[in-house]
Amino acid sequence: MTYCLAMALDAGLVFASDSRTNAGVDHISTYRKMRVWQQPDERLIVLLSAGNLAITQAVVAILDQNVRAAESEHSLMQVGSLHHGARIVGQAIRQVYHQDAKALREAGVDFSVSMILGGQVRGEPPRLFMIYAAGNFIEATPETPYFQIGETKYGKPIVDRVISTGTDLTSAAKCALVSLDSTIRSNMTVGLPIDLLVYRRDEFAVATHQLVHDNDPYFREMRTCWGQGIRDLFQVLPDPPWKI
Amino acid sequence: MTYCLAMALDAGLVFASDSRTNAGVDHISTYRKMRVWQQPDERLIVLLSAGNLAITQAVVAILDQNVRAAESEHSLMQVGSLHHGARIVGQAIRQVYHQDAKALREAGVDFSVSMILGGQVRGEPPRLFMIYAAGNFIEATPETPYFQIGETKYGKPIVDRVISTGTDLTSAAKCALVSLDSTIRSNMTVGLPIDLLVYRRDEFAVATHQLVHDNDPYFREMRTCWGQGIRDLFQVLPDPPWKI
Repeated sequence: MTYCLAMALDAGLVFASDSRTNAGVDHISTYRKMRVWQQPDERLIVLLSAGNLAITQAVVAILDQNVRAAESEHSLMQVGSLHHGARIVGQAIRQVYHQDAKALREAGVDFSVSMILGGQVRGEPPRLFMIYAAGNFIEATPETPYFQIGETKYGKPIVDRVISTGTDLTSAAKCALVSLDSTIRSNMTVGLPIDLLVYRRDEFAVATHQLVHDNDPYFREMRTCWGQGIRDLFQVLPDPPWKI
Repeated sequence: MTYCLAMALDAGLVFASDSRTNAGVDHISTYRKMRVWQQPDERLIVLLSAGNLAITQAVVAILDQNVRAAESEHSLMQVGSLHHGARIVGQAIRQVYHQDAKALREAGVDFSVSMILGGQVRGEPPRLFMIYAAGNFIEATPETPYFQIGETKYGKPIVDRVISTGTDLTSAAKCALVSLDSTIRSNMTVGLPIDLLVYRRDEFAVATHQLVHDNDPYFREMRTCWGQGIRDLFQVLPDPPWKI
């Protein structure tokens, strides 16, 4: 499994992803699921991926190949809008489907993949898209300014309570770490380190990109404070009035 | 969907279940998922059910029929141990499987059912079992003193942080309501009212059984305090040290 989260806020974009991949519980490895393409002052594009690792790697390989084939109209480094970028990612997913889906089906394996594409291309505001296994996609809006892929449930309540488009980038990054931490605690197929990337609107460069390991002092402090805070909050919550 | 939760604590047992049933998003109804059999000073047995409503109702109908057929060795009102009770529930599930599974499969419907059986029969301590669709079952232990069935993920983190076998019944009931509330907020196929039942060890009678509606003053207060408390806790959590 995997858990990736991205938020589209007034101030910019926040991306976070875990780095555990498993093929059964006895075959667990570390693979980062965040990919960044950037061109100073022109564009910053981030891709998060969940699903079958062979499929997501094949999709990224196609995207990289298109970037290397300079003048390609399928290159993320050439697109004039992120919407066009989402279409390119969708087409790459469909290409892998045509190559592999039949053989996967015969082996009893689902064609499972989902991706989040976000960033900013000069001439546009920052944008955020979620792309499905069928290659179609949706865009984040002010009413629903975030996307999750993979193991999404454990980490959703805190995002729903805290995030709106007006949230500042520091709070949003903190919320992303809390959301990832809740998921990592509850599902052993989601694991550290966490890739955390913050993009500030109109900067066309990474504001911060951290790889957060288990021994990161801030992450440890945050985890401890949050866990103790939840238990303290539970203690002060009024008791039921019923005779028990 | 459904969400049911039960805890086996030193002081007794706590059961909670929502009451929403849906066949697609355009066919939502209210059905309670908690069933109680009791015999003063002798036994108290509670059954929680999740899955296909036609299946769970068929299982309960068999259990009720067995109870009415007095001297039956398949009656929950006659069993000398809750382990025997769990076997009876498992057999009832298998009976429904033999009646209905083929027709369900032909209609493209899964044979989906899971149940939690808990209570106390005189001569034994309180016990708690989870019964699967195949009719087999497991028992709660001090290391893992609770079971969940249905939509379990949203409401699991708070239970993991708060509940151990030493937790008192009032705190456990409060925790069950928080867990149900988190799930109800995140998944519209889980809904109010909540059936909440507390059983105090060796009393062989219900300590409290509440049907908690949306307009319940305590539940509303608890919801508000919890939501505000989470947001406050998030605010005082230290900010990341990285330049963002």
